[in-house]
Amino acid sequence: MRFVEMIRSAWTRQDSLLCVGLDPDPRRMPSGLRTAPDSIFDFNRAIIDATADLVCAFKPQIAYYAAADAERQLKETIEYIHAAHQGIPVILDAKRNDIGSTAAMYAREAFDRYEADAVTVNPYLGFDSLEPFLERSDKGVVVLCRTSNPGARDVQDLISDGRKLFAIIAEKAAREWNRNGNVLLVVGATYPRELREVRAIVGEMPLLVPGIGAQGGDVEQAVMNGKTPDGAGMIMNSSRGVIYAGHGRDFATAARNAASNLRDEINRHRQAHDE
Amino acid sequence: MRFVEMIRSAWTRQDSLLCVGLDPDPRRMPSGLRTAPDSIFDFNRAIIDATADLVCAFKPQIAYYAAADAERQLKETIEYIHAAHQGIPVILDAKRNDIGSTAAMYAREAFDRYEADAVTVNPYLGFDSLEPFLERSDKGVVVLCRTSNPGARDVQDLISDGRKLFAIIAEKAAREWNRNGNVLLVVGATYPRELREVRAIVGEMPLLVPGIGAQGGDVEQAVMNGKTPDGAGMIMNSSRGVIYAGHGRDFATAARNAASNLRDEINRHRQAHDE
Repeated sequence: MRFVEMIRSAWTRQDSLLCVGLDPDPRRMPSGLRTAPDSIFDFNRAIIDATADLVCAFKPQIAYYAAADAERQLKETIEYIHAAHQGIPVILDAKRNDIGSTAAMYAREAFDRYEADAVTVNPYLGFDSLEPFLERSDKGVVVLCRTSNPGARDVQDLISDGRKLFAIIAEKAAREWNRNGNVLLVVGATYPRELREVRAIVGEMPLLVPGIGAQGGDVEQAVMNGKTPDGAGMIMNSSRGVIYAGHGRDFATAARNAASNLRDEINRHRQAHDE
Repeated sequence: MRFVEMIRSAWTRQDSLLCVGLDPDPRRMPSGLRTAPDSIFDFNRAIIDATADLVCAFKPQIAYYAAADAERQLKETIEYIHAAHQGIPVILDAKRNDIGSTAAMYAREAFDRYEADAVTVNPYLGFDSLEPFLERSDKGVVVLCRTSNPGARDVQDLISDGRKLFAIIAEKAAREWNRNGNVLLVVGATYPRELREVRAIVGEMPLLVPGIGAQGGDVEQAVMNGKTPDGAGMIMNSSRGVIYAGHGRDFATAARNAASNLRDEINRHRQAHDE
């Protein structure tokens, strides 16, 4: 199934726009787990099993695995999601890119080595750097547009020809880069006004919206400004707010409760407009 | 030693601005090597030993290792350069970045796990995403400015307030981001006019200049437009043009000859201005 259909199907079937970010930092994991040889995989599996019926996607952030020399555990985590929770897409958060011949290697890393269903990429190098990803029409290519961090404005808000750079990226993504119908955009929940602006440009294109939870993005504002007319269109990611909700032996239960509350909060605002 | 001092010292001591890019693609490696278990490391070691006296730096491109499940061989390659050819800096070409807490993991990957002396990063996320790298004042932070690919113009040439985006990045890099004196910029050899423009903005800041060799950048044009008054200031990278100069058992000798010719060609144009 193509990624965009996969995510739309997951929104409906799971009744959830919530994505749980799998950013395992050994220093923040429960102390009982930290010393096990596969502690990252064990931690992830517990979180995945505790939240899989509440989410539309999982999003491992590759930096956490790279810093910990844990590529094997990343691969096992994605394999586990595919095997144990079929139909839940995996977005590999990698935010990298390069010139075409090298970008092809990154596409191979994300889609062939790790078997991710989608990957995040950086648009600074232009269209030809995105092509090796876009060619994989069954996979999702999630292009950074307006990120959730305070410094996002340094570059992404520069104004060219009357429009901010992030709006130009949204325009290019929707009109030029989406020939295979597999482009999505990253827009941070911490910037609801920008979310509204991007939504107006891209129509029903799915948006990956990080920044709720630990980063302080307001769920109501994000949903009201980012949703499509059918009350969907967004993959709303929380990482630390869910996976570190508890720190003891009951960490998976704590994660489930946090995910459940967040899903319900999102769902309340999805419907708000129609009432 | 701080990275910028390390590279200046290498320019002088080695009498070379040439950087050899270690982008090992198993499909392009000599057939006799392809099947060995550590073929990537073996290939790299042969290239390194054959060219180390001709270069100012080595630049492994991490995408090639990631696509091949070869992180261990990347680590061994960098360890080997440090052990066998002391004083030759290693630039890890990773071109990634993320919000601060995640960028810190990428900094750890590059500098602690792989022990690279410098890393390439993408500026699209703004200053706070660069901070975890910039804080490592002994390490080089090589920010993408004007890349060597045809699509570079899609985003990097957008004009804001009368200046192209890449020139704004150069300005920010030189005036705002370089508090620790450890910033460098990537400017492609394929765009000599832009190289001249960046050089005028950043003074003596070292530039990483890819695109000579397989990508077709003209060495004379690149050197004349990018060098500092003392005939240095550039780390001129060739990957495929050197490492795949030969395909048989003599591939290392062929790589040495290609590197030697390229170093000499660069050196001729470094001095041209003074004659």
